[in-house]
Amino acid sequence: MLLRDKLSLVEVFRITWKLDFMIILVCSLAYFADTYWLKRHISIPVSVTGVLGTALAFFIGFNNNQAYDRWWEGRKIWGAIVNDSRSWARNLLNYCDNGKAGEVPHIARRMIFRHIAFLHALKANLRKTGDLYYEGYLSKKEAEDVSNSHNIPNAILNIQAADLQQLRELGAVDGFCFRDLNALLTQQCDHMGAAERIRNTVFPPSYLFFTRVFIWFFVILNTFMLAESIGYWSVVFGWAVGFVFHVTHQNGISIMNPFEQNPMSLPLDSISRTIEINLLEMLGHQPLPSPVEPVGKHYLL
Amino acid sequence: MLLRDKLSLVEVFRITWKLDFMIILVCSLAYFADTYWLKRHISIPVSVTGVLGTALAFFIGFNNNQAYDRWWEGRKIWGAIVNDSRSWARNLLNYCDNGKAGEVPHIARRMIFRHIAFLHALKANLRKTGDLYYEGYLSKKEAEDVSNSHNIPNAILNIQAADLQQLRELGAVDGFCFRDLNALLTQQCDHMGAAERIRNTVFPPSYLFFTRVFIWFFVILNTFMLAESIGYWSVVFGWAVGFVFHVTHQNGISIMNPFEQNPMSLPLDSISRTIEINLLEMLGHQPLPSPVEPVGKHYLL
Amino acid sequence: MLLRDKLSLVEVFRITWKLDFMIILVCSLAYFADTYWLKRHISIPVSVTGVLGTALAFFIGFNNNQAYDRWWEGRKIWGAIVNDSRSWARNLLNYCDNGKAGEVPHIARRMIFRHIAFLHALKANLRKTGDLYYEGYLSKKEAEDVSNSHNIPNAILNIQAADLQQLRELGAVDGFCFRDLNALLTQQCDHMGAAERIRNTVFPPSYLFFTRVFIWFFVILNTFMLAESIGYWSVVFGWAVGFVFHVTHQNGISIMNPFEQNPMSLPLDSISRTIEINLLEMLGHQPLPSPVEPVGKHYLL
Amino acid sequence: MLLRDKLSLVEVFRITWKLDFMIILVCSLAYFADTYWLKRHISIPVSVTGVLGTALAFFIGFNNNQAYDRWWEGRKIWGAIVNDSRSWARNLLNYCDNGKAGEVPHIARRMIFRHIAFLHALKANLRKTGDLYYEGYLSKKEAEDVSNSHNIPNAILNIQAADLQQLRELGAVDGFCFRDLNALLTQQCDHMGAAERIRNTVFPPSYLFFTRVFIWFFVILNTFMLAESIGYWSVVFGWAVGFVFHVTHQNGISIMNPFEQNPMSLPLDSISRTIEINLLEMLGHQPLPSPVEPVGKHYLL
Amino acid sequence: MLLRDKLSLVEVFRITWKLDFMIILVCSLAYFADTYWLKRHISIPVSVTGVLGTALAFFIGFNNNQAYDRWWEGRKIWGAIVNDSRSWARNLLNYCDNGKAGEVPHIARRMIFRHIAFLHALKANLRKTGDLYYEGYLSKKEAEDVSNSHNIPNAILNIQAADLQQLRELGAVDGFCFRDLNALLTQQCDHMGAAERIRNTVFPPSYLFFTRVFIWFFVILNTFMLAESIGYWSVVFGWAVGFVFHVTHQNGISIMNPFEQNPMSLPLDSISRTIEINLLEMLGHQPLPSPVEPVGKHYLL
Repeated sequence: MLLRDKLSLVEVFRITWKLDFMIILVCSLAYFADTYWLKRHISIPVSVTGVLGTALAFFIGFNNNQAYDRWWEGRKIWGAIVNDSRSWARNLLNYCDNGKAGEVPHIARRMIFRHIAFLHALKANLRKTGDLYYEGYLSKKEAEDVSNSHNIPNAILNIQAADLQQLRELGAVDGFCFRDLNALLTQQCDHMGAAERIRNTVFPPSYLFFTRVFIWFFVILNTFMLAESIGYWSVVFGWAVGFVFHVTHQNGISIMNPFEQNPMSLPLDSISRTIEINLLEMLGHQPLPSPVEPVGKHYLL
Repeated sequence: MLLRDKLSLVEVFRITWKLDFMIILVCSLAYFADTYWLKRHISIPVSVTGVLGTALAFFIGFNNNQAYDRWWEGRKIWGAIVNDSRSWARNLLNYCDNGKAGEVPHIARRMIFRHIAFLHALKANLRKTGDLYYEGYLSKKEAEDVSNSHNIPNAILNIQAADLQQLRELGAVDGFCFRDLNALLTQQCDHMGAAERIRNTVFPPSYLFFTRVFIWFFVILNTFMLAESIGYWSVVFGWAVGFVFHVTHQNGISIMNPFEQNPMSLPLDSISRTIEINLLEMLGHQPLPSPVEPVGKHYLL
Repeated sequence: MLLRDKLSLVEVFRITWKLDFMIILVCSLAYFADTYWLKRHISIPVSVTGVLGTALAFFIGFNNNQAYDRWWEGRKIWGAIVNDSRSWARNLLNYCDNGKAGEVPHIARRMIFRHIAFLHALKANLRKTGDLYYEGYLSKKEAEDVSNSHNIPNAILNIQAADLQQLRELGAVDGFCFRDLNALLTQQCDHMGAAERIRNTVFPPSYLFFTRVFIWFFVILNTFMLAESIGYWSVVFGWAVGFVFHVTHQNGISIMNPFEQNPMSLPLDSISRTIEINLLEMLGHQPLPSPVEPVGKHYLL
Repeated sequence: MLLRDKLSLVEVFRITWKLDFMIILVCSLAYFADTYWLKRHISIPVSVTGVLGTALAFFIGFNNNQAYDRWWEGRKIWGAIVNDSRSWARNLLNYCDNGKAGEVPHIARRMIFRHIAFLHALKANLRKTGDLYYEGYLSKKEAEDVSNSHNIPNAILNIQAADLQQLRELGAVDGFCFRDLNALLTQQCDHMGAAERIRNTVFPPSYLFFTRVFIWFFVILNTFMLAESIGYWSVVFGWAVGFVFHVTHQNGISIMNPFEQNPMSLPLDSISRTIEINLLEMLGHQPLPSPVEPVGKHYLL
Repeated sequence: MLLRDKLSLVEVFRITWKLDFMIILVCSLAYFADTYWLKRHISIPVSVTGVLGTALAFFIGFNNNQAYDRWWEGRKIWGAIVNDSRSWARNLLNYCDNGKAGEVPHIARRMIFRHIAFLHALKANLRKTGDLYYEGYLSKKEAEDVSNSHNIPNAILNIQAADLQQLRELGAVDGFCFRDLNALLTQQCDHMGAAERIRNTVFPPSYLFFTRVFIWFFVILNTFMLAESIGYWSVVFGWAVGFVFHVTHQNGISIMNPFEQNPMSLPLDSISRTIEINLLEMLGHQPLPSPVEPVGKHYLL
């Protein structure tokens, strides 16, 4: 997640120079093609680029809308994970009847620790990093069992359910409290699945492919049209208009896969660390890990 | 589900050549009609195609929006099926009181197997393939009973409910746990119905029909207009603009019925296999089936 | 619900001939008015129709969006009714403790029959047909009681609640199961209310009225403008552009009230018959009624 | 809620004459300013009004979308109130164990009457009418207590909760039934709050203010531009275009505050009377009040 | 929250003078650049600004839509907090069995007071004011404990859960009532998290940055184009068009972060005071604090 809404000219150039170069190259070629060949035969009517430009603005807007929806849904899912994590710890710490058996507080504590493991395992899964940080919050035995599974966070949830059943059999939670805790477990499973859905579902590639093709189409036609009235200046203005369309399209694409590990994606490191701190604090754990710092005061991962 | 967002020129041609041919034919006819007849009488004003083009961009955008919503809702439904499948297995495996009667674990196991049957039967139903793969996860008796039903997945849910009642009568689940399991059963019924709703509800055909008519309208008028200023080049540029509108319209249509069995549809084979693996793994079943491979590294079914 | 997305020219003509005639009439009048009067004084600038056309495309798009949302919400409501109907029957058939009293299975059966009555009464209410088909699924006494009510489907729900309470008093369902069944009853009441809301709430008429006025406005101005450059051909092209705008507007209006009984509306006959068959099948009833056939292979009611 | 989607010319004039007058005045001034001053110096390029007009269509469309959403959300809230009212009465009438104590039926009845009071108090609150009709459905004591409260409908809900607790203490409802009834009470509180939210939250005024300013801006520039080519006719066509933009903007504003008491607002009188009739009928009350009649067959309040 | 939708010219000037100055400066520079340099070489075609303007209107519209959604979601969250606060107090006051132990009413009262503390602590957290007003509704001990926490409102919820457990252990609430109260507690946690999500998630800065850049782009190109036909008047009309785009963009940005403390943000002071009054009134507390007054009759904080 970027933190600043100002970019210096240098940064803009660093981000877009490849694109700039490509557009200028294409506009130059179009300019020469028009000047030394096409112009001698025909003159492109203005209306063609007008209609194409308007239509393109629509189609880019459509892609951006869907991209933003994916990004914001991803953010909502992790927001819900934050909320359910706090409720999970609050319920376990306050509603277990500790008088029933000596081991009850231990079970509750390890269910909270294990939830932190779930978060980190889910994050590693979504980002495909293979990060094993989550193992620190599991017992050795659990870490081993879980590591053989096709879906590690899901395997952790199964252990949680087994412990929840044990709490119930020990009489530490009654049926009412059991349902509240199990509802939270089910919701964690739902959030996990929803995040996987976004990560695994490719945005229809034909939309992106053809939009990109149409933008190049438009850039070329626009340069043809401009070349006839303003000569080699058509490269400058062709680039300017092409830049607006291409950059807006790129903006959409950059947030389309919100669980990747880059400056535009959701700051999963920071979010999961915040929950970690919240939960450890509720457990009275010392010392607390420090929050994730922005990279170069610039973005959060 | 397509996996790559790049298409080679050859592929684009393979997908669109019929359309290309049609557009070029129509543009050519329009060019001749204009040159040898219409031009002698009138000159089409630019504004007509400008207004029509803008309006069309809207109407195509509208169709695409609704198409995408159908596709994404379909994906969400199957995402929810994934989540509820995992919760179904987790609850049955952990919350049944196995001490009550020797048959309890068997009932729980067969309820999980039967859920896999439900998935495959639902998939076969949505795609109208008549695939009988689901029978492998049912007893012979159940498979027979179910095959006479108008709606096979629904009939499977009824057997699940009968087994759930049996678990309860045996004392293996109490009322609290019963409600959680029955809620999952009801949700499976809801997802099934929601998927059927999308498959059975035709997108208002008049929207698609008239949008297609209007695009041809626009292509012809546009070629008329171009023919007057750029002669036979109007066929080229008429095709270019027509291509943008037609392809965008096609993009929308291609994802409108997300449960069909084609490269643009949702990868139901892959999703249901993933759940199958997850559930069999939770049951400790060996060997696990292998995940569905992309067809030609290109798309998932 | 229309089933085909192709219309022959004849059908298009049959549907739109009144509109075509009106547009041609208005365009002709505008042409004469321009040629014999207005043209002598002024020449309408192109920009006026450009701006108006774009703005109109927006406003028509807005109406169509809301119309589609009403239609799709209506479809979702009836989809939810399908799901809840199946769950209602599944719960009643499987979770009632038949050992408690001899009449329990009879009560459960009549509650399922009565649900079919509810569906047909709701449909008749939404379509204002006064159809009494629903009475066949009620006892004579109930049919009489219910027929005096202001809202027949609501009265049927009240009888369902009384029977549910009886099941509970007989000990056939416990509190847990009671809550699940009552939740379904409450949801049926919610769906009924949601469908009534759509039927009873007129889409803000000023939106439709003024959009229609503005389209005529635009058609006239456009013809004025065209008449100056292309003479009597302005009637042809004025019709063409007017046709696009009017037909798109009509498309929206045709799905705005999804519970009417016409080819564009939701196929309530077909949906409620499907549920009827599903429920009778679950009851082991013979013979089953046949599904609703499309009218002329063309549309479902 | 308007009932007809046709307005006579007279009515249109009655609604819009002030606006018409203002637009014509402004256009005339612009015409004179252009003719006797601006024209001598410059000629406004067409492109300015083209771009401005398109942009304006967007911004008006945005406001209208949000206005419609407020209106429809308001309608949904009152639709949900209808549903929950029926469920409230159905649950109270059918699920109370009347055998427990003689006063149980009386408590249930007065809880239904009191719900009608809640509806009318909520309506009076939303419309700020100070209407005391609701007192007729409360006991004298209750009416007095409630009238001292800052929020009368909320105070009524508190009395409902006290009675619900009494039913429970008398053993007339068990815990399961208590939760269903309390859920309905909580939902009534939610609907009340949601309706208050819409009424109390001003739509961001800067959006409306600047959109209005920009429309006048556009009307003036458009008249300048027209004046140069068509002279005093610019007043006519300037008015025509201005009328389209202004009226569309007004349409949005007219439904932005759906709980006011005017012909465009939601028919709260009619809706709450319908519930009143439904509930009294369920209680077997005679005679029933008559439904609210449309005002001049024209609109419902 | 602004209360009036009319701004005097003076106010508009006060709000926008910096922007006006910048636009006029840029337009003047563009005018000189064009007149003394660019004009001699080329003449900018109208179509460039037409296409750019339309595209920009889209992209600004997109940002405004998302901004409005953030603002309205923020409002819905605080609306839900209002509703849940009332239900919290209603449930605690009516459903606790006071006969069980003398301290029960005291616990219930302090749970309501503590909820007011939660509201004010959440508000202070969202606005980062560090305001300690919330401490007045906590005991000294609680205020101290809570103040050491990383997340004060979350720490307050934990104390609520402990008290709820105590009520249950004392037998003052049974399992059914416990679930209703705990559901409200969980929802308060969810609302808190949802509000934090909006506050902590920066709207993708590249969208805002590039939109701003593109608007300046457009202003410059537009002035170039105008300068060729209307000379130094291009500064006036360049400003006019630039003003429309810039102000609309600003309108969006001004509501993007709805929890800040400025006139355009949500009136959290007023909303939380309203709940405070409602809850104290329900407790029979005297005197009630007075509602928050608008600042200068102009806006609510």
